[in-house]
Amino acid sequence: MDWRLMEDSFDAARITHLGNTFLTGNGYMGVRGALEEYGKEQLAAVNLSGIYDRVGAGWREPLNAPNGLITYVSVNDKEYRLPGTEPLSHTQELDFRHGIHTRRTSWRTEWGRLTATCQRFASMDEPHLICMRYRVETDFAGDIAIHTGIDGDVWDIHGPHYTDIILDSDDDRLTALASTGEGKQVAVCAGFAMAFESESHTSTSGKSIMRQEHIHARPGDIYTFHKYIAVYTSQDEGDPLENAAACARDAAFAGYAGAKAAHCVRWEGLWDLSEIDIEGDDEAMGALNYSLYHLHCIAPRPFDSRSIAARGLSGQTYKGAVFWDTEMFMLDFFLHTEPGVARTILQYRIGTLPGARDKAKEYGYEGAFYAWESQEGGYDACSEYNITDVFTGRPMRTYFKEKQVHISAAVSYGLMRYADITGDLSLLVEGGAEVIWECARFYLSLLLKRFNGQSWEIRDVIGPDEYHEGVDNNAYTNRMAKYTLDAAIQAIALLKDTDAQTYEALDRKYGLYDSVRSFQEASESLYIPVPGVNGVIEQFDGYLSLEDASVEDLRARLLDPREYWGGAYGVASQTQVIKQADVVSLLWLFRDEYTREILKRNWEYYEPRTEHGSSLSACMYALLACHIGEPERAYPFFMRTATADLVEGGKEWAGLVYIGGTHPAAAGGAWMTAIEGFAGLSAEDGQIKINPHLPEHWDRLSFKIRFRGDIYMIDVSKDEYRIDKMGE
Amino acid sequence: MDWRLMEDSFDAARITHLGNTFLTGNGYMGVRGALEEYGKEQLAAVNLSGIYDRVGAGWREPLNAPNGLITYVSVNDKEYRLPGTEPLSHTQELDFRHGIHTRRTSWRTEWGRLTATCQRFASMDEPHLICMRYRVETDFAGDIAIHTGIDGDVWDIHGPHYTDIILDSDDDRLTALASTGEGKQVAVCAGFAMAFESESHTSTSGKSIMRQEHIHARPGDIYTFHKYIAVYTSQDEGDPLENAAACARDAAFAGYAGAKAAHCVRWEGLWDLSEIDIEGDDEAMGALNYSLYHLHCIAPRPFDSRSIAARGLSGQTYKGAVFWDTEMFMLDFFLHTEPGVARTILQYRIGTLPGARDKAKEYGYEGAFYAWESQEGGYDACSEYNITDVFTGRPMRTYFKEKQVHISAAVSYGLMRYADITGDLSLLVEGGAEVIWECARFYLSLLLKRFNGQSWEIRDVIGPDEYHEGVDNNAYTNRMAKYTLDAAIQAIALLKDTDAQTYEALDRKYGLYDSVRSFQEASESLYIPVPGVNGVIEQFDGYLSLEDASVEDLRARLLDPREYWGGAYGVASQTQVIKQADVVSLLWLFRDEYTREILKRNWEYYEPRTEHGSSLSACMYALLACHIGEPERAYPFFMRTATADLVEGGKEWAGLVYIGGTHPAAAGGAWMTAIEGFAGLSAEDGQIKINPHLPEHWDRLSFKIRFRGDIYMIDVSKDEYRIDKMGE
Repeated sequence: MDWRLMEDSFDAARITHLGNTFLTGNGYMGVRGALEEYGKEQLAAVNLSGIYDRVGAGWREPLNAPNGLITYVSVNDKEYRLPGTEPLSHTQELDFRHGIHTRRTSWRTEWGRLTATCQRFASMDEPHLICMRYRVETDFAGDIAIHTGIDGDVWDIHGPHYTDIILDSDDDRLTALASTGEGKQVAVCAGFAMAFESESHTSTSGKSIMRQEHIHARPGDIYTFHKYIAVYTSQDEGDPLENAAACARDAAFAGYAGAKAAHCVRWEGLWDLSEIDIEGDDEAMGALNYSLYHLHCIAPRPFDSRSIAARGLSGQTYKGAVFWDTEMFMLDFFLHTEPGVARTILQYRIGTLPGARDKAKEYGYEGAFYAWESQEGGYDACSEYNITDVFTGRPMRTYFKEKQVHISAAVSYGLMRYADITGDLSLLVEGGAEVIWECARFYLSLLLKRFNGQSWEIRDVIGPDEYHEGVDNNAYTNRMAKYTLDAAIQAIALLKDTDAQTYEALDRKYGLYDSVRSFQEASESLYIPVPGVNGVIEQFDGYLSLEDASVEDLRARLLDPREYWGGAYGVASQTQVIKQADVVSLLWLFRDEYTREILKRNWEYYEPRTEHGSSLSACMYALLACHIGEPERAYPFFMRTATADLVEGGKEWAGLVYIGGTHPAAAGGAWMTAIEGFAGLSAEDGQIKINPHLPEHWDRLSFKIRFRGDIYMIDVSKDEYRIDKMGE
Repeated sequence: MDWRLMEDSFDAARITHLGNTFLTGNGYMGVRGALEEYGKEQLAAVNLSGIYDRVGAGWREPLNAPNGLITYVSVNDKEYRLPGTEPLSHTQELDFRHGIHTRRTSWRTEWGRLTATCQRFASMDEPHLICMRYRVETDFAGDIAIHTGIDGDVWDIHGPHYTDIILDSDDDRLTALASTGEGKQVAVCAGFAMAFESESHTSTSGKSIMRQEHIHARPGDIYTFHKYIAVYTSQDEGDPLENAAACARDAAFAGYAGAKAAHCVRWEGLWDLSEIDIEGDDEAMGALNYSLYHLHCIAPRPFDSRSIAARGLSGQTYKGAVFWDTEMFMLDFFLHTEPGVARTILQYRIGTLPGARDKAKEYGYEGAFYAWESQEGGYDACSEYNITDVFTGRPMRTYFKEKQVHISAAVSYGLMRYADITGDLSLLVEGGAEVIWECARFYLSLLLKRFNGQSWEIRDVIGPDEYHEGVDNNAYTNRMAKYTLDAAIQAIALLKDTDAQTYEALDRKYGLYDSVRSFQEASESLYIPVPGVNGVIEQFDGYLSLEDASVEDLRARLLDPREYWGGAYGVASQTQVIKQADVVSLLWLFRDEYTREILKRNWEYYEPRTEHGSSLSACMYALLACHIGEPERAYPFFMRTATADLVEGGKEWAGLVYIGGTHPAAAGGAWMTAIEGFAGLSAEDGQIKINPHLPEHWDRLSFKIRFRGDIYMIDVSKDEYRIDKMGE
């Protein structure tokens, strides 16, 4: 397959989209696929993982580092840069096997042709480093200048975050030390290696420092320089500026070719275990591996305890916060290919237990109520006003933060799944069991019983389908609460067998025996909606009595294309149209508890009523379709999921709020659909199982996975499949 | 005092307002204070009690009878009628001691001056009858014509209701028999008695039938005729058209003077017991008695089982439906002055128990959930979409119908109060006790307990303050639910003592012993919010954490003066600003359970945060202010209540929905404030008590009341008060 993504012309309207599509990254930072001459207007950004800041009453969001990429050329003082100056030719290319971004652009100047070429990568070998090779050539003799530096006037959604920026320079480097109102610091050092004679001049202007290299260019000569951009923050150990300077210096010393080689070796190592081969469908194979590329770019590999934001490292959208997406949609990929990353992701939840406890307390509950939009320390960045009304311009009160209670179950699910897939119980011992315990206590405190009632109910929640707010007995939520209660009992039993000391400490803290009895009672009497006469499970109390309008009906009712479909008065709110898989997610997760007929009935009932207004939706429909043996039905949903970051026209607005960026949950969902759907991988009693349902036109699907410390090569073809254990 | 309301000029902008202010009525029908020449454009209407109809998907609303008042004059074929032709002089007068409406208008014609005078009344002696005396005079000789008839093209909010109308005439009468889509019929017969020679001509056009009387007028002569307009509907016994014809004929036979005398005698009889005398404040006395006038006009005296609509008989606003207003704000006046009317009102609730049971079942509850907007049979006319969004023109989903659960408590309260004030237990025996029992069962089925909770809660309701939807543990609602549970136990005990047979029948039906135990347990453990550290009772869970904005702040935030303040995104929704008395209503009702200090603290906390956007609000503040001994604070709220139908500028819109009309709950609230507030009347252990707090400038307040079969004359002055028993 072709591991290159190519653009061979320039279209200013696609700048934002390409910023996401051509993203490179290494888990520490994401470098938007912006061209080197871009500024904040073109959403150029080096987005940082897990460092947040708030300005005034704005949303708290992650920082974009001062942009060390900024570079452009001028001829006789006339600047040549996109999108301002129309090019003669332009190509932009991403090698997504190695995370290398290349552009080549020619302009016709009044003196002749000017060509700039740049290759760059965010080093997978050194997560603080971006390496760049920039080349200029002309077919005329003339005075050209290369302008390159650090642009501290960065793109911010709720900024500006940098209240102070200290700029400095010496012969072969520029530095910027930017400070925020919260006192966070980001240091950027750009080191240079020039392979030509030039006259240098450095200047600062506002928040930017720029170096001009003046060259008497000769026709046909190529003027190359390398730039080593190192980024450190005050959240990293040590002095950020010193560390950045040392990193840039070391890189310059090693040289571009060496850095690139080390970077590529790392990438090859990742693909060795994660590459998926599909015979008979190059398009699907390309899209799927491209999805995995994105997951690799944002995996929090450099950290011990860090998770992945809902829009990865593609910018400040969704506040750079961690949602349930990570555990429910991305985790499986890492569990089966790079368990260390899965551990880091779950360690983040263990580390943010205090925040989850605080949130539970704030809302009058017990235990752990995890943040809907989690930032550092478990701080819930979710605003009470997430959407702007397009008609009034007013913020709309939303309840994602306080009513999407299924988040704590997602965390518990992830922890249990880690133990199950990796066979490693250490995470449960080192805090994981307590997290699940606290989540179970949270659900216990949510339960309500009527005066003459027999069962416990969960009321006034938002399920995965966010268009219906404050519903009672959401089937998904109730079942996941029951799951959590059961998981707590199970986790504590595992803990007792594994580490008596930790068990006893928890017992002293919680009185495990009595609690287990409560959990059991609650789990047994928790109301779980069952299929009705037509086999359909009602999404929540009263759902089936709502108007049975179609998605198209609703679209026709819109007065403004950007208006929000949910909330109190959205076009979907009083209808059966849902944003995303809800009952179908429940059925996928608990597929063994229902007959094929019930699974199929519900798939067929809910799919036409689903807007798929979230990138989390299609993969659930794809997965369940595979499970009921209908891969052809699954296929379009799989492709939709796998191409979420390739195709344009995705949902970029909720009300007046920009929600664009990359879609790592869809990428994870694509992996799940291929492996757990089409190949039908599952684990039972410590053994992996395969139950393939390949699309008709796929001849073969092969991949590797890790399971309980071993690596397996799995090869599925039309008539047979093989599972080969390859050792650790 | 002056019992006349006067207008001495004509202002077209005030037509709608005067239609309410100059209303006459007799409980069977309300005749809007429209001029005789008005049509539906000027909201002329003869609004009928308790007969409803629905057109298509529109709101179900009461019928306006074909308008038998329609009358105007022409000179040489040129019509003189308001508001079309500017008058020379115009007076409109209401004698609100006797419910007699008079107008006198002169026009300058090109031939000279033309004057039309009309006096009319809706007979308090014969509820199907409106009598009218019309006079024309000129100061010139000329051909004039009097046009008079029945206009079937009536004002409808969600009409047209009449799909068919049969018009007929003979020498001295016109008839109209109008039929609706639901098959309801309204018959109108207009009988005439002419005191002059004329040439008659009758014609029909569309839904109207008109008679023209052509006169060769001589200067200074007065041409008088009487019109007897009889109205019967298919809900009355017998053939409506025959009955109407007979009624009009009998009235014509008896003559106008006789009918007027009989009418006035009835009114004097009403005032004999209800007139209130205030020395030192003619304005207050006038407004108060004018309020009582409105209550008299709409009292369902002609019926055995009928209640009062929220906008009385002033039109189709609020669908002519019965709200909690009747029991909580109007009932006390009738209990103390005309208990038969109170009985009729409560009989309506007993009769609509089946509807309340159906509604409870519909929402998954037990017992009786009374209609929020009750029409015949207890049908809940409350729409799920009560308000139109001013920004989008879309209907907004509202939850008054399903969440304002305090309605059943209001019904129970009314029934218990009837027994307490009248001493008559027959209503409890004849269905009242069962109603209360069913209301208690309803509240029982609402109760929820947390897994580790000790008390029962009521969640997801709307309290009296409708701006905050779906709140938990509204203090008013919870306390009223407890009241109902206690009342059920008490009512059943009274029943056992009074009528063993009925008691046993109920016992067989419900198993009273076990239920009483449940009611007791629930009542004891029902969570009632208590005063916090600052003495303030939180209106509902979380209320005190909402933004503490002022009413003025919110007004400044409005983008459209008509926009709805409540619902999900209204300006008040996320603030502490409330629509109307909520906690203060609770405190007034249960004033004996709190210290004066607590009552005062809450009054002072909530009053500045109350928009008083409902006519039910001010009187509660007035009553509680009296009770804490601050009549000067009460006075402006009292005056606001007593003048609700006199002053212009009241709230006439909720979103895009017209909500204007008369305000009988405010009228009832004015009575309560005078008698139970300023005079401090209460009953304890079967005895009446007086605890006066007169405003400084009131020298004396005297009135009569009925209590347990006796009539008392009560006379309160600055330093003393007297209670004189006057016999039955």
